Amino acid sequence: MRRLYHQPLSPFCRKVRLILAEKKVEVELVEEKFWERRMDFLRLNPAGKVPMLRIDGLILSDSAAICEYLEETHPTPQLMPRGAPERAEVRRLVAWFDDKFHHEVTVNLLYERVYKRLMKTGYPESAKIKAGAKNIKYHLDYIGWLMEGRRWLAGDELTIADFAAAAQLSSLDYIGDVDWARNEAMKDWYAKIKSRPAFRSILADLMPGFTPPAHYADLDF
Amino acid sequence: MRRLYHQPLSPFCRKVRLILAEKKVEVELVEEKFWERRMDFLRLNPAGKVPMLRIDGLILSDSAAICEYLEETHPTPQLMPRGAPERAEVRRLVAWFDDKFHHEVTVNLLYERVYKRLMKTGYPESAKIKAGAKNIKYHLDYIGWLMEGRRWLAGDELTIADFAAAAQLSSLDYIGDVDWARNEAMKDWYAKIKSRPAFRSILADLMPGFTPPAHYADLDF
Repeated sequence: MRRLYHQPLSPFCRKVRLILAEKKVEVELVEEKFWERRMDFLRLNPAGKVPMLRIDGLILSDSAAICEYLEETHPTPQLMPRGAPERAEVRRLVAWFDDKFHHEVTVNLLYERVYKRLMKTGYPESAKIKAGAKNIKYHLDYIGWLMEGRRWLAGDELTIADFAAAAQLSSLDYIGDVDWARNEAMKDWYAKIKSRPAFRSILADLMPGFTPPAHYADLDF
Repeated sequence: MRRLYHQPLSPFCRKVRLILAEKKVEVELVEEKFWERRMDFLRLNPAGKVPMLRIDGLILSDSAAICEYLEETHPTPQLMPRGAPERAEVRRLVAWFDDKFHHEVTVNLLYERVYKRLMKTGYPESAKIKAGAKNIKYHLDYIGWLMEGRRWLAGDELTIADFAAAAQLSSLDYIGDVDWARNEAMKDWYAKIKSRPAFRSILADLMPGFTPPAHYADLDF
């Protein structure tokens, strides 16, 4: 049985879940409290992170590696372009959201507000929350700027880059940290990706102790 | 003209330089002090990081995206396996070194000791240097453990994963932070990759104000 070890609000897990759902690859979801460093989990996955995917007799970790694997083994629908320059642009943007956006925004907001409480590692630091709230503005405008000349983030086609970005934003939207009024092109792009069937299971997930804002699961937000 | 904007001790730039050299793709090297946030550089590369590669009329950024592009456009010698499971293992390890090793080790040692001085952002923090010195042990042993059952890090063939790891280690070796006596299998692997012609230009690079230890450029260290 295919199985995804995940955390409901982890943007990296959400990215993999979105790609799996787009490609209609069914998996059993298993919630893994990775911070508890369970020995059986670490033995399979020494990085100790989620997502970890059991598939085709393999154990895969690292969300970018998992997405590329899924694209290579389940090429329909196609979520990576064919040309090398276009593929480089998708990967640049995936890294932008997985690395830059994540460290500048998500770590400062989601980890401070949610994971510190779950992991019992202290209280939110207001300086970090302020930094995250400031940094997200620039990223939302960057998405808007990209969308002024493109149908999807990396070009004319929907790609893994859109899911990498949408996964980060959906985790932050759950805690009310995305100002959708900031940029219309950005909001239109998110409305388009949020209304895909692949998004449904993610929007239905609830995290005990944390209630999302009313618009969170609303497709007409 | 192909041009790589880089920093001599950046492990991400070193990884790209090694892949370029293996594939015999000649580039002009341009040192970019990315922390000065030069406007002409930011316009081309809004992430503001090095490496940035000008090639085939394109501007590429993000070292992992650049390496995949080079593999797709210059497939000889082959540095990615053909099978999806093997490719996932290469990408898992690239992420291990680019992300986990870099944040747990390189940031704590190289950025504290070298980049803070270059960027004039303060003095090295001894707590961070201690953390980096502690963390590297576990990573060196992980390389040794992988090499007990494999010819190269990701399996039987030399891949991008070996260059991702060697790039991090070579930057740290320049500042004397790698204990080569710790693990023999790890040292044998590094000696093998360090003796490749692709490594020569990197070992010859000197950073004004920082002198590498005597063994640094020695192939028989």
